[in-house]
Amino acid sequence: MAIITVVGAGMMGSALCVPLVDAGHDVRLVGTHLDGDIIDSLRQSGTHPKLRLELPRAIRPFPIAELEQAMQGAEIIGVGVSSPGVGWAREQLAPYVRPEIPIAMITKGLEWNGSALSVLPDVLALPNGAAPAAIAGPCIAGELARRVETCVVLTGRDGAMLERIARAFATPYYHLFPSADVIGVETSAALKNAYAMGIAFATGLHERRGGQPGSVAMHNAESAVFAQAVLEMQHIVRVIGGDPGSVPGLAGVGDLDVTTNGGRTGRFGRFLGLGLARDEAIARMEGATLECLDILAVLEAALPTLEGERLPLLRHMIDVAIKGDPVNLPFQKFFR
Amino acid sequence: MAIITVVGAGMMGSALCVPLVDAGHDVRLVGTHLDGDIIDSLRQSGTHPKLRLELPRAIRPFPIAELEQAMQGAEIIGVGVSSPGVGWAREQLAPYVRPEIPIAMITKGLEWNGSALSVLPDVLALPNGAAPAAIAGPCIAGELARRVETCVVLTGRDGAMLERIARAFATPYYHLFPSADVIGVETSAALKNAYAMGIAFATGLHERRGGQPGSVAMHNAESAVFAQAVLEMQHIVRVIGGDPGSVPGLAGVGDLDVTTNGGRTGRFGRFLGLGLARDEAIARMEGATLECLDILAVLEAALPTLEGERLPLLRHMIDVAIKGDPVNLPFQKFFR
Repeated sequence: MAIITVVGAGMMGSALCVPLVDAGHDVRLVGTHLDGDIIDSLRQSGTHPKLRLELPRAIRPFPIAELEQAMQGAEIIGVGVSSPGVGWAREQLAPYVRPEIPIAMITKGLEWNGSALSVLPDVLALPNGAAPAAIAGPCIAGELARRVETCVVLTGRDGAMLERIARAFATPYYHLFPSADVIGVETSAALKNAYAMGIAFATGLHERRGGQPGSVAMHNAESAVFAQAVLEMQHIVRVIGGDPGSVPGLAGVGDLDVTTNGGRTGRFGRFLGLGLARDEAIARMEGATLECLDILAVLEAALPTLEGERLPLLRHMIDVAIKGDPVNLPFQKFFR
Repeated sequence: MAIITVVGAGMMGSALCVPLVDAGHDVRLVGTHLDGDIIDSLRQSGTHPKLRLELPRAIRPFPIAELEQAMQGAEIIGVGVSSPGVGWAREQLAPYVRPEIPIAMITKGLEWNGSALSVLPDVLALPNGAAPAAIAGPCIAGELARRVETCVVLTGRDGAMLERIARAFATPYYHLFPSADVIGVETSAALKNAYAMGIAFATGLHERRGGQPGSVAMHNAESAVFAQAVLEMQHIVRVIGGDPGSVPGLAGVGDLDVTTNGGRTGRFGRFLGLGLARDEAIARMEGATLECLDILAVLEAALPTLEGERLPLLRHMIDVAIKGDPVNLPFQKFFR
């Protein structure tokens, strides 16, 4: 039994608390200043309004104003803030991090500093703390919160630390597999949000041409884009110093597959494939967080450092989702 | 314009004729002794009974009795028989093959001779003929026949021959990408039929537990199996001498994705996941060809040569689909 404090009460941070309480820990969930309603709801009814689910009452919710209390005696820290919130989390956590306290991060993204891309565990890292580990792989929060069998990668540069986190977090339905390839795993996890959008272009194109769902539904085209996405992810991981061998695993193809099968990124890509203008498609998403746009903006800035001529799908996705061009998948340029 | 004769009038052989006539060739489609009804229907109404589609009348259908006529002047030969029919095709084609006539094969499978696995182009190869090339990748026949954008790999050991075939077969919607890795590409194409069944186990398990389709639908588990499938496919390709780098491309993840998204292999896996006994699940498939059972039987025989301890998913699929064990996915053994 350990005291585990998770900061960020969004869907994934909150879902992670379910295996943690099932594993017998004292679990504290801290909402950020954006999570006030969530913490209120959890305190009042135990229901998470975004997950639309009653969470185990053993999870103890805290508002950000009570961070100090929530951190008291914490033996492991979880970080589940949104990707723009990593700098904020870094400041908030500074007084509490120590080399012997493992940090496990579930926030996904890439940061561009004008000359290089960084993965978020490296952005979060504090000189006085342990190098953060990170969790990646196919995990829809609503499924984990309902205890659906889930396999994830736990990546970090300190093997003993990974071992401790993996042992603490594992349950009969939540399986963590260690990997030392922080850059490959975290880059894959970030890129999948962009590429899942591109795969969904085909779904939209199909409907636009009057097609019905079913056996003739642009699956050939969709799966060709899927394969090209995996190859481009391998290329990007290789260029920025990760192991391309991490891409054909949980954090790459696994997470790309789950993201394609469910959720908002696919809906957004479908709207674009249907021929909606970029701004119209964004409006139709009614304020849903579109990680794909954040990551595409970062990749657009980084493109000159990524041998962009080998990334025809990425360039097309940028043209469509950032610049507003119509969808016209460049199949002829793929697989070179 | 060339004379192209395709032997095997099943769904894929017939669908391939659509881009061939669109590319302006004289296309002859020869039914095997199992395709009599198909050839009759094509001659009478132009409709392919399995594709349930009227094919372009420029495709000239021939029964097997008229093979000699259909072969007259053939400049390229296509082979689209079923995998057990490759030996038969070898005999039938023997009088017509010549080193200068390219052969393009779309039949998928692996053969076990008691000590080694062979890919089908090597089984078909005749001493007096050219080494057959093969087409693999995500291609649902009904979509290709309807001119849906499709990307495939064209693999063979003779680069100039690949170039000729690719140039002859390409249309604005049918894209062929050359690869010299015959073993990697063809092994991936064969394995995907088995692994797509395993991925569908999760779908069945979900329904068995009373789950509805939607956002909480065992996607986490499904995508974990997908990732493990890709890693096991890479392992098998490596062991039998192919390039594991072919797996994260069209012939591997691309074809696995399309096979998972549509078709009979997925339905069969779902039945097993639902808890139906093996024989019951087969009965429910009402005589549909189950390539997954053929390939699993071959892999079971070959297992001692494949470092089977590194293939927990394959072994579980054999236990379920060949030996009749219940589905119980061994997630703990994955990703090692």
